[in-house]
Amino acid sequence: MAVLSYLTTTHFDFGAVRLLSKELDRLGVRRPLVATDEGVRAAGLLDTVLGSLANSRDVAVFDGTPSNPTEAATLAAFDLYQAAGCDGVVGLGGGSAMDLGKAVALLAGSGGPLDRYDPLTGGGRYIATVAPIIAIPTTSGTGSEVSVGFVIVMGDGRKLTFASPKMIPRVAICDPGLTFGMPPMLTAATGMDAVTHCIEAILSPVVNPPAEGIGYDGLRRAWRYLEAAVNNGADREARWNMMMASTEGAMAFVKGLGAVHSMSHAAGRLPTLKLHHGTLNAVILPTILRFNDGVSSEKYERLAEAMSLPKDADLADAVIARNRALGLPSGLASMGLTAGMIPDLVPHAVADLSNRTTPRPADAAVYADLFAAAL
Amino acid sequence: MAVLSYLTTTHFDFGAVRLLSKELDRLGVRRPLVATDEGVRAAGLLDTVLGSLANSRDVAVFDGTPSNPTEAATLAAFDLYQAAGCDGVVGLGGGSAMDLGKAVALLAGSGGPLDRYDPLTGGGRYIATVAPIIAIPTTSGTGSEVSVGFVIVMGDGRKLTFASPKMIPRVAICDPGLTFGMPPMLTAATGMDAVTHCIEAILSPVVNPPAEGIGYDGLRRAWRYLEAAVNNGADREARWNMMMASTEGAMAFVKGLGAVHSMSHAAGRLPTLKLHHGTLNAVILPTILRFNDGVSSEKYERLAEAMSLPKDADLADAVIARNRALGLPSGLASMGLTAGMIPDLVPHAVADLSNRTTPRPADAAVYADLFAAAL
Repeated sequence: MAVLSYLTTTHFDFGAVRLLSKELDRLGVRRPLVATDEGVRAAGLLDTVLGSLANSRDVAVFDGTPSNPTEAATLAAFDLYQAAGCDGVVGLGGGSAMDLGKAVALLAGSGGPLDRYDPLTGGGRYIATVAPIIAIPTTSGTGSEVSVGFVIVMGDGRKLTFASPKMIPRVAICDPGLTFGMPPMLTAATGMDAVTHCIEAILSPVVNPPAEGIGYDGLRRAWRYLEAAVNNGADREARWNMMMASTEGAMAFVKGLGAVHSMSHAAGRLPTLKLHHGTLNAVILPTILRFNDGVSSEKYERLAEAMSLPKDADLADAVIARNRALGLPSGLASMGLTAGMIPDLVPHAVADLSNRTTPRPADAAVYADLFAAAL
Repeated sequence: MAVLSYLTTTHFDFGAVRLLSKELDRLGVRRPLVATDEGVRAAGLLDTVLGSLANSRDVAVFDGTPSNPTEAATLAAFDLYQAAGCDGVVGLGGGSAMDLGKAVALLAGSGGPLDRYDPLTGGGRYIATVAPIIAIPTTSGTGSEVSVGFVIVMGDGRKLTFASPKMIPRVAICDPGLTFGMPPMLTAATGMDAVTHCIEAILSPVVNPPAEGIGYDGLRRAWRYLEAAVNNGADREARWNMMMASTEGAMAFVKGLGAVHSMSHAAGRLPTLKLHHGTLNAVILPTILRFNDGVSSEKYERLAEAMSLPKDADLADAVIARNRALGLPSGLASMGLTAGMIPDLVPHAVADLSNRTTPRPADAAVYADLFAAAL
């Protein structure tokens, strides 16, 4: 069992989920709210986790997390948290369930309303305490289990990224066995999310070489093992390495992200389309790799090296080819976005937290061009 | 200013030393003991640091750290700490001064005797509290400013490695400007210490990919910039990168080290020779790279890649050539060790903490051969 303790104490290996009960005890949590979604329940993973607790404690379960977590769902889960007398949160699922769990823990510790904590308005300073969070990923991509951030679609339609060191889960339990049943398309899309995290974190201009080193290692693993995980969900080595790449991607993005995420957040908030975050990232990534080309030839060469490509390879072409091989969409148009929607998307991309750490600055006009190119 | 916060809050950039006063305030330290050595004082660095405090507080100074810190010197410094009513430690210097500072902080927090905390006998569990430590390196190699460990030559002649997460300094202040005056030979020897930390941490069998990613990044920097730092001590880029490589090396060795360090600790404890730790590591490293060759061809290929060498390069030859270019000794014999000393060295290498994480196990007979090969 690997125990990593950089930002979060992370238990990482097949079977790690059996440590949940002990870790709840260690954090003094008697009655956790398990924040999850229907897919996780249907896949039997909720039963696996509850079974590991072996009647050792009362648990409240909220399984109503939407595919992009909303403020309304967060409030519903928080109502349950209070009604059931909970004293901690277990976030079980992909990024959506873990993010909703983080939001509930924040409301439990510091009160509402949620948008008071928007980091774009300096809201991090209002975070007094956060209820203990244990995060258990069931996909390999988001890295929310070790990250400072969470993303919620607010009641007014904004997709807000919250970020504070206080929001890092107290414990992450990464059990690659929980991803064996993940369908190929979700494996592909979440895996490309991890790839995007590593690449955007590396390209961010924030100076943090250890985070960059972790990002290169994560990219190397994700690029090497993603196809194997998609082609054979039972491939233990591929599942282990994809979950590690996901965790490493989030450790890397303490440096911040970039324009892929600004655009992905802007498009992911649309309630009519309900687009998958990882798929959006995969589809937008080539456009932004072209946009940033030339900003740091040294970083591009090291990215190519981590992807086992020649130093001067066209990284955008490589991602396009990989997306095609994985069966992911070739552009935003095939996901339902149209040129007519761009004016609505642009201001959200400009205002997004990730736009603060783009290696090449982008304003509204630039984002309009980038969305058009990514269609 | 880069702020890294994986294990330690690390302020990293030219001029970072000006943050000392603020960080002491933040930790509530009113009267620190500055643990340093005569070389640091003679180089004017103690004055630089005390000047940055601008009469803001009383400071006690212990400048009697020997080149390999001893239990006797630790006790002398602790006497001063108590007599002066200190409530925290600033470790200022190379690994020796920072390590002595850590030992004093441990005695201040949890009492003596020091060997009660020997991790080989499970002593870590006796560490109750540790007085606040701020570490300020003046060399680039040890990484003690962010590491869990410290090494003390005990009164009975053993060189003990202490290691506990509680021993990580609360704050590291890494100001590459403090290394401008470091002489070429010390730059070379401490730089090869950083190289050795990265390589041995990577080769350790402990599973921790983020630490390995940091190790590869550190090795890449150290290998690229060490000659420039040796040839021109005023090269800002080289000094910055060597200090970063040093910090990264220690972040990586949360995975543990290996046989280079077991042997180096065994030889470094000899009171008659007073051998430099980094120089010993540089000289022993090629022997251990040959010894471990074949254990992980993937890791050897990635090491070669980080060193800008062909995949199948002979890493031992590359280190030998680099040592020669840097003017470092070609073997332990030229440092004063003889074949007759080997029987005395071997049991210390076998008992060393680093011997627990060697990729290829080594017993007494093997260590005798390795010492002979390294002569």
